[in-house]
Order: sequence, then C-alpha cells, then structure tokens
Amino acid sequence: MNVVLDAMGGDHAPTVNIDGAVEAVHESEDIHVTLVGDEAVIRKELKGRKYKAGRISVVHASQVVDMHESPSVAIRKKKDSSIRVGIGLVKAGKADAFVSAGHSGVVMGTSLLLLGMSKGVDRPAIATLMPNLKDKFLILDVGANVDCTPQNLHQFALMGNIYCRLILGREKPKVGLLGIGEEDIKGNELTKEAFKLIKQSSLNFIGNIEGKDIFSGKADVVVCDGFTGNIALKISEGLAETVIKMLKREISGITAGRLGYLMLRPAFRNFKKKTDYDEFGGAPLLGINGTSIISHGRSSSKAIRNALRVAHDFSRKRVYEAISDAIQSDLHAREA
Amino acid sequence: MNVVLDAMGGDHAPTVNIDGAVEAVHESEDIHVTLVGDEAVIRKELKGRKYKAGRISVVHASQVVDMHESPSVAIRKKKDSSIRVGIGLVKAGKADAFVSAGHSGVVMGTSLLLLGMSKGVDRPAIATLMPNLKDKFLILDVGANVDCTPQNLHQFALMGNIYCRLILGREKPKVGLLGIGEEDIKGNELTKEAFKLIKQSSLNFIGNIEGKDIFSGKADVVVCDGFTGNIALKISEGLAETVIKMLKREISGITAGRLGYLMLRPAFRNFKKKTDYDEFGGAPLLGINGTSIISHGRSSSKAIRNALRVAHDFSRKRVYEAISDAIQSDLHAREA
Repeated sequence: MNVVLDAMGGDHAPTVNIDGAVEAVHESEDIHVTLVGDEAVIRKELKGRKYKAGRISVVHASQVVDMHESPSVAIRKKKDSSIRVGIGLVKAGKADAFVSAGHSGVVMGTSLLLLGMSKGVDRPAIATLMPNLKDKFLILDVGANVDCTPQNLHQFALMGNIYCRLILGREKPKVGLLGIGEEDIKGNELTKEAFKLIKQSSLNFIGNIEGKDIFSGKADVVVCDGFTGNIALKISEGLAETVIKMLKREISGITAGRLGYLMLRPAFRNFKKKTDYDEFGGAPLLGINGTSIISHGRSSSKAIRNALRVAHDFSRKRVYEAISDAIQSDLHAREA
Repeated sequence: MNVVLDAMGGDHAPTVNIDGAVEAVHESEDIHVTLVGDEAVIRKELKGRKYKAGRISVVHASQVVDMHESPSVAIRKKKDSSIRVGIGLVKAGKADAFVSAGHSGVVMGTSLLLLGMSKGVDRPAIATLMPNLKDKFLILDVGANVDCTPQNLHQFALMGNIYCRLILGREKPKVGLLGIGEEDIKGNELTKEAFKLIKQSSLNFIGNIEGKDIFSGKADVVVCDGFTGNIALKISEGLAETVIKMLKREISGITAGRLGYLMLRPAFRNFKKKTDYDEFGGAPLLGINGTSIISHGRSSSKAIRNALRVAHDFSRKRVYEAISDAIQSDLHAREA
C-alpha cells in the first residue's frame, strides 16, 4: 500500500514528516511512503536514517503552499505544490492515499478538485476523533462546510457511521446530533430538519446530544455543521489545556505542591497521552473519491506516523467506496 | 433593594433557595428578598432560621412550573406560577429584580411577556460568565435564540459590553466574535455579516476569536448565536468535569496516587472553587425592561446567593437602562 506524504506541510516540516515516515515503515510491513516536496531537501533529511530500502520513495514538487495563503489562489496558481503533486499521484492511480499537515483548506480544495466527490454526496466533511470517558468518539464536520443544509448533516451521519464501523470496529455505532437539548423538537432550524432525516434512516440514531454529554461516551458519532464542529473541537482543545494550566498553577501555589506533583507525574503523563492529539492520527476528508487525511499543522512525528497508519487503514478497508455505497443505498431506500 | 426569588425553581428547591436568601440578607445590608411560592411550604422552611426581621418576605403563588413542561403551555396556562407571580411583582414596580433556578424557557418567555423588550432591541440574550486563565469572561447568547440575524449579534455585542463595563468594571472591554479563524473574512454567513456591523460600531472590537482562545483571556466579551453559545457552554462544563474525572482515574491507577492526591488536594479544591459555576451568580437576560436572572437548575444555596447578589448589582447599577441607551445611541449613530 503506497501512501503519499506531503513532506513540506506543517509547522515542523520537513523534519518531523520524514521522522514520521521512517517510523511508519518500521511499524508496518505493508506500507510504502512516497515523500513529495523539494527533492534535494528531502534527500538530505533522509541521509543517514535507517529504513528498509525501497519502502520510502521521493517525488519532486517545486512549490510549497504557505499556511497563510488564500486557498483559492494557491489552488489555482501553485500547480507544482507538494499538495497538488501528491494528490495528483492518488488521482493517477500511482498511490492509494494522501496525508498532509499543510494548509487544510488547500488540501480539501485540491482533493475535491482532483479526486472529486463520491456519487450522491453533496458535500465532503472533515471527521476527527476525540477522547471521551470510555475511549473515543468521532465528530464531523469540523470545518469543511461553515454553512450546511439538513441533507448535508444527514449525509455526514451516514459517512461517520461507516468510518466508525470500519475503522473503530464498532458494529452499530450510536449516532447523535449535536444540539441544545435532548428532546426531539429542540434545536435550530438546521438541526430540527436534519433530525427528521436522520431519524428516517437505518442508522442507530440516539437523537440530539448536548454539549455536556459528548465526552461521556453516549455517542460514537457526533454530527454537526462545520462551523459548530470547528468551534466545539477548538474549545475542547483550548479548555483541556487551560484546565491543566490552571491546575498546575494551583499546585505550584501550595507548599506540598512540588512533591505531590512529582508523585503524580506519571498520572499526568498518562492523562496527556490518552488525550494527546498526536495519538489520533489526523482527520480524514470523507465523501471524496479517494483517501485524503488532514493532519494538524502542529503535528509531531508521532502524529504524522499515526496519520499514515490511518491512511493505510482507510485504503485497506476501502472506506471511501463503502461511504459511496452507503449514500447510494440510502438514496434508493428513500426513493422506494 | 427588593429582589424577588422564585422559591420553587430548581432541582433542590425550596431548601437551597431559602438558604441562599438567608445568606444573601446576611451578606448585604441593602438587600430585601421576596420569596415567591407555596406560602405554607416557605414559612415552614423559614421557621427556626435566623435573619433580620423584615429583610425577607413571602408572597404566595399556588402553582409550580415543572422542568419538563412545554414553555408555551406553561406560560399560557399557569397564571399563578411562582415565576409568573414573581416577575409580575417586578412589572408592578413592587420589586427591582427577579431570580429563578426554574425552567429557563418559561422565565425567559414570561420576562419578555410581562416586562417587554428594551426599545430598539430585536432579541434578548442570555449572558453568562465563564472562567479563563486571567479571571473570567462573558459569553452571549447562550440559548435565548437558536437562530440569529447579524443584527442580533451586533446588539448582543453592545449589550455584553455594557454588562462587562458596569458589572465587571472593565473600562473598555475587548469584544470578540466567536468564529473559526482569526482572519476578518473567515466565518459562516451569519458571522461574516455580523463582523462588518460590529466593526462599524464604537466597541473595542478585536475581531474573530477562535474556540481555542476563549479561555486565554484575549476577549472580555465573546459574542455568538444562542445555538453555538449553548453548545460552547455545555461542552466546557462537560469537558472540565471529564478532564478532572480522567485525571483522578489516572491518579488512582498509580502506586503513589493516594498520597500524592492527598498532598495536592488543596490545589484541586482551589481549582474547583475558581471554576465553580456556583461562584458566577446566574445568567442575566439582557435586552428586556427589567432585571431577570436565570440560575442553573442544579443551583446550590451559594449559587442562589450569588445570583441574588448579581440581581442586586444589576438593579443598583441600572444595567438595563444603560443597555437601552447604548442600543439607542448606536441606532442614532448609524442613521447619522
């Protein structure tokens, strides 16, 4: 399985990207990584690293998309960017999946442009995993679509369900609609209509789920529009950091703080590991004809390695084909 | 200053409500509390408690609104509910402010019905304080309006600014618009339009603020529609609890956990106190002709006492009149 990695994307590229690629090919026998970007830079970084010959290859791309560029301009003008060349390899059938920690808007736009949307899908969605008290859950959309229709949300539910079944191995995922009250009739115009559509589907729909309940493990899949989802995700990231900062500040303010903290440090470390973004392996773009994974700009080598693993898993389990099938059969069921 | 307290509202009513009332009149020389509800029950609860004669009075109301009732039905049919009678006292000029931990939809609807909206205000908003790394910030709307116009958001910004100036004493509050990116052009249709309106106002507008930044102290006032705000609030509540639960689970899993935790307990306690909802004193309904404060259904006596204090502060500082003035002068400025 050949996964393309944008070697130039992310705050710590290319070093951590190449670290992640080397780790990924160590970890799995079945993965080949194609690094795309400035060949000279990549070859220099690869020098001296140990990995099985033939498991990593390099494809040159002369341009790099900057994090602050306008997506539309970058997509139109940078025809030889590492993102464009990398996704081009997937489109040409020369690779199975693409991973980038670069400009998420450009990755999304280019994926759409080159790979196209799956038949029947109206809008793609970015899906991400988050930790909860039981294990983890999937939330989508977290930013591909700031304004959504009820039909979009319904399709996100179908797509998230497939992800959760095939990748997390949960037989009958509990799907919830992010809202402001558990009662069926609560919500805004968008969610009230989406509620009716999802209720009619064959999904294991548990109804509205409130913000306070998403971390309890009540739902395996939490569905929302990309504006709300992005805010939910960012608030969670910001708040988790803030809670730990506030707690550490309180700890440093008490006499026994230093010693007590030393004693509890393994617990803090375990907590950090379980809630660490790096463990979750990037956010796939669902609803397109192919596998394209967006990783955080701040990605470490571990995050990159995990994103490559997820990309590999997605291709192997043919997630995008299953999504297309699910959308098709839902359409047929509703027409019948 | 006479503050009406719905004695029957909330999960732990009437006991904690009456505890809170007694604490409030102990704490402040200037507050009189009128308890509204089943007089026999209230008198029985008051028996044996110590408080200055004449500082607490009782007004009978024969009905109680249940937490699960439909707001429209309860507002229409329960004409002698503690909520309706209580707000009626404010309307009749017999009291200065109203506090309830009961059904928030009914409190909001009845406040609107009896007190009416301030001149020029299109929709009221529920504003709540939340802790951040510096101290605390105000977020609104957190649930009064699930679907908003850009004009609504603009007015929320004006109203939040007044709250923050008069109650928190911040001279020139930094007002941010909750969104998905810091750039001016980022957002959904609603926030992009609202951005332009708020930018034209005289407020100290810092632009879009991302979910991850609301706890950093960047903004004093965070503006959003009631759907997004409610989700933001509930996610924060749920996540803060979850982080502490997960951390405690990790702590109990290590050998030195028990001892280390005992040593750090004062720090955990301080953290809890600083982030405790009970400290924040309820969420005022802004944009109506009067003072009406919604307290959490789970309110403790401390939460009730603090809500009474906030109600008192709101009346004394004439917040609702100042909001009405601010909306008026903004309208005039834009017409000129």
